[in-house]
Amino acid sequence: MDNKKAILVIGAGDATGGAIARRFAREGYIACVTRRHADKLEPLVNQIIAEGGQAHGFGSDARKEDQMIELVNQIESTIAPIEVAVFNIGANVQFSITDTTARVYSKVWEMACFAGFLMGRETARVMLPRERGTIIFTGATASLRGRANYAAFAGAKHGLRALAQSMARELWPKGIHVAHPIIDGAIDTEFIRETFPQRYALKDQDGIVDPESIAEAYWQIHQQPRNAWTHETELRPWMEAW
Amino acid sequence: MDNKKAILVIGAGDATGGAIARRFAREGYIACVTRRHADKLEPLVNQIIAEGGQAHGFGSDARKEDQMIELVNQIESTIAPIEVAVFNIGANVQFSITDTTARVYSKVWEMACFAGFLMGRETARVMLPRERGTIIFTGATASLRGRANYAAFAGAKHGLRALAQSMARELWPKGIHVAHPIIDGAIDTEFIRETFPQRYALKDQDGIVDPESIAEAYWQIHQQPRNAWTHETELRPWMEAW
Amino acid sequence: MDNKKAILVIGAGDATGGAIARRFAREGYIACVTRRHADKLEPLVNQIIAEGGQAHGFGSDARKEDQMIELVNQIESTIAPIEVAVFNIGANVQFSITDTTARVYSKVWEMACFAGFLMGRETARVMLPRERGTIIFTGATASLRGRANYAAFAGAKHGLRALAQSMARELWPKGIHVAHPIIDGAIDTEFIRETFPQRYALKDQDGIVDPESIAEAYWQIHQQPRNAWTHETELRPWMEAW
Amino acid sequence: MDNKKAILVIGAGDATGGAIARRFAREGYIACVTRRHADKLEPLVNQIIAEGGQAHGFGSDARKEDQMIELVNQIESTIAPIEVAVFNIGANVQFSITDTTARVYSKVWEMACFAGFLMGRETARVMLPRERGTIIFTGATASLRGRANYAAFAGAKHGLRALAQSMARELWPKGIHVAHPIIDGAIDTEFIRETFPQRYALKDQDGIVDPESIAEAYWQIHQQPRNAWTHETELRPWMEAW
Repeated sequence: MDNKKAILVIGAGDATGGAIARRFAREGYIACVTRRHADKLEPLVNQIIAEGGQAHGFGSDARKEDQMIELVNQIESTIAPIEVAVFNIGANVQFSITDTTARVYSKVWEMACFAGFLMGRETARVMLPRERGTIIFTGATASLRGRANYAAFAGAKHGLRALAQSMARELWPKGIHVAHPIIDGAIDTEFIRETFPQRYALKDQDGIVDPESIAEAYWQIHQQPRNAWTHETELRPWMEAW
Repeated sequence: MDNKKAILVIGAGDATGGAIARRFAREGYIACVTRRHADKLEPLVNQIIAEGGQAHGFGSDARKEDQMIELVNQIESTIAPIEVAVFNIGANVQFSITDTTARVYSKVWEMACFAGFLMGRETARVMLPRERGTIIFTGATASLRGRANYAAFAGAKHGLRALAQSMARELWPKGIHVAHPIIDGAIDTEFIRETFPQRYALKDQDGIVDPESIAEAYWQIHQQPRNAWTHETELRPWMEAW
Repeated sequence: MDNKKAILVIGAGDATGGAIARRFAREGYIACVTRRHADKLEPLVNQIIAEGGQAHGFGSDARKEDQMIELVNQIESTIAPIEVAVFNIGANVQFSITDTTARVYSKVWEMACFAGFLMGRETARVMLPRERGTIIFTGATASLRGRANYAAFAGAKHGLRALAQSMARELWPKGIHVAHPIIDGAIDTEFIRETFPQRYALKDQDGIVDPESIAEAYWQIHQQPRNAWTHETELRPWMEAW
Repeated sequence: MDNKKAILVIGAGDATGGAIARRFAREGYIACVTRRHADKLEPLVNQIIAEGGQAHGFGSDARKEDQMIELVNQIESTIAPIEVAVFNIGANVQFSITDTTARVYSKVWEMACFAGFLMGRETARVMLPRERGTIIFTGATASLRGRANYAAFAGAKHGLRALAQSMARELWPKGIHVAHPIIDGAIDTEFIRETFPQRYALKDQDGIVDPESIAEAYWQIHQQPRNAWTHETELRPWMEAW
């Protein structure tokens, strides 16, 4: 497997993770995509293969340390070195502070922050001896500021941003490109279509973010020469208020 | 207990929490101070009483939902309405990303962020019907940016900042003043004396923050008229690099 | 004039500058207040004197280097050492980018930024040998972010913030406390009453900032011990959206 | 000139402006490059032509309103519609606050901020009826924070950032993509080679930013579909401390 290289996409259950996996697969990366239940990944894996790429789906709970360790080891030993890792799990919930249960607050953090830590640490571990690699954490508006009814989600996204920034400052000088692009707007996903139909209706005017645009931006970040790396950047629709 | 009012200080184990409790006790607030083991609070409680104030020490694990609920209910029903709540638990640890265990990462978050959520929610719950009260979360440099070896601590402090900001945007219009002062420098505590002796040596030149200064700032925040409330502010020594 | 000390307030034409001058005059500072035309300062000077304080009004164009130099020298040589300097000139105008004339863009900058530079430099010059003093620049929402129709005003306020921050990092270690409080909301002034009457109507609910609150905050900043100085803080009404 | 399109680069005197002009010229844009003295632009114009592109050099003082108006009108009427405008004038000077003359403070602002306003306004004016176009302002570390000895430069760069942000919020919804990439590190230019030779020596390790990397990033920004535009992003070398 001399020239093989893999991209690991944690949280490939939505359109964004899928678009990223397909984008890198088009460039020859073996897409290793995960979500909790592997069977739901079949359509994506099949699509990548149909497009001429290589892909593997993994059912893996990203919040479980042993599963993350096992996942990374398995890919490294049986598929290819992980050249790129993308953390793409969101957990966009809204509750007033008094309606936020301890369970919700913890679960949102486990999914959107702690799992990112596990992916970041485990992929850094295998990249460090190679002194190369790209680790991308997907940020959101809530990464930048708290809002009424967003204590849980903003807390997790702020934590993820701190992780990305701490890792960047530690790992850039060791050759690993850690980035934190912020998607500041609704993305064209099932979740938005069902939860915010009025928002979704802006799609005709390019008012919501196309996952392909995100995938392209992530590809460009990975391509940057090390004399000019980006850590934080932002993507939002032209008509978004901000 | 018509005119009685209490201040709850979660994390009164260090000099900062103690100074805050004493500052408010001097103004007539009944200081309800907590740390994991109540017996270590005796010197503080005795000092406040010796200074003419009222104080109660509580052994309480701030990371446990049932204990936080019980604590707040007990104070409200047997001591006085909680007029001010201060969250003051830190968890300043340093580990490279690959040396950060899942246990450390989780524990730091539980102490420095999740416990803050529990305190914030429970005190908001009792303050909301009264449409008044002040909730203060103590921030640090790590609240603002991640740094090499600070993924765990910065993650927790970022999450706490998101909590404070989300709660402020939700609760200010309901009469509750939520604030997030950032202490950007070493504080004159046992922890700094033992861990960073060189830093501590700057004390003679006012190079580390006096807990009394923090207590005074918190008192001023609580005194602000609602036409001019502060959410975020910062305190640092004159000679601090920033 | 051994124990005398002066506060210089540049831009004392509105309620804010006046309230600051009166607040410090109550503490024994000789209030040296300026605006372009001295005669309009008479009511303020008379009020301070009626309240038992000392005050001098100066007609001075803060955008003129020679006038600023002369002003500072005159106060220092004939009245008292300038212990505190407050820059309080705003220039809140709104124009779409294509409607912003070069003249407007320049004038706003001269008033709200360049004049601040002149005051900052000249008062730093006299404070540096004494290794003490406080310099406060009044910030606004526009100090933090640009907005549609605010290119000129936001540009000047951003520039003033950069000045305050640069001066703080240079002068704090030399004993001079430079601060930049941000007033994030409408202030109870003639300007707001006439320009934004709906906003002004919120006064009954404490929805606009009372100049006395600003004055108190500035006094507290000046009183801070050097182990815990504030550079940036924010004041906004409890019901303000932010 | 039906399919012709021009890129205007204000401040093409250094390697960065030149690289940007060449990058867009390779894609068919007619490069209209300016600096104060046109004759110094000959090498760049000749290089672009030698590479198969089209280019025009203009001697123009970007700080003069009439010259900027004339420049934009001349390009629009005799060369091609300005599809992209890049503001690339820096003015990186260092002086302690007391050594900063009013002349230096003003000149730096005129060059690095006011000229940007003139370019932004005049190019927005011609782009607005077409409801398309890209306007890019080059930011620097000093755009984000003030530093000791940087009051003048940081003031101008902060003002430019406020301009970019205000214009973005006003013009994005009208179809014009305004962006503010921040170059957070030394760039491989004559200025850095001569002024900071130790810094320049890091070039062998990719420790300073290659102007070609900046040019590529600007090209990518211009290529973004409007469902996912970037306003602010950052570029810095992998080994830069930040």
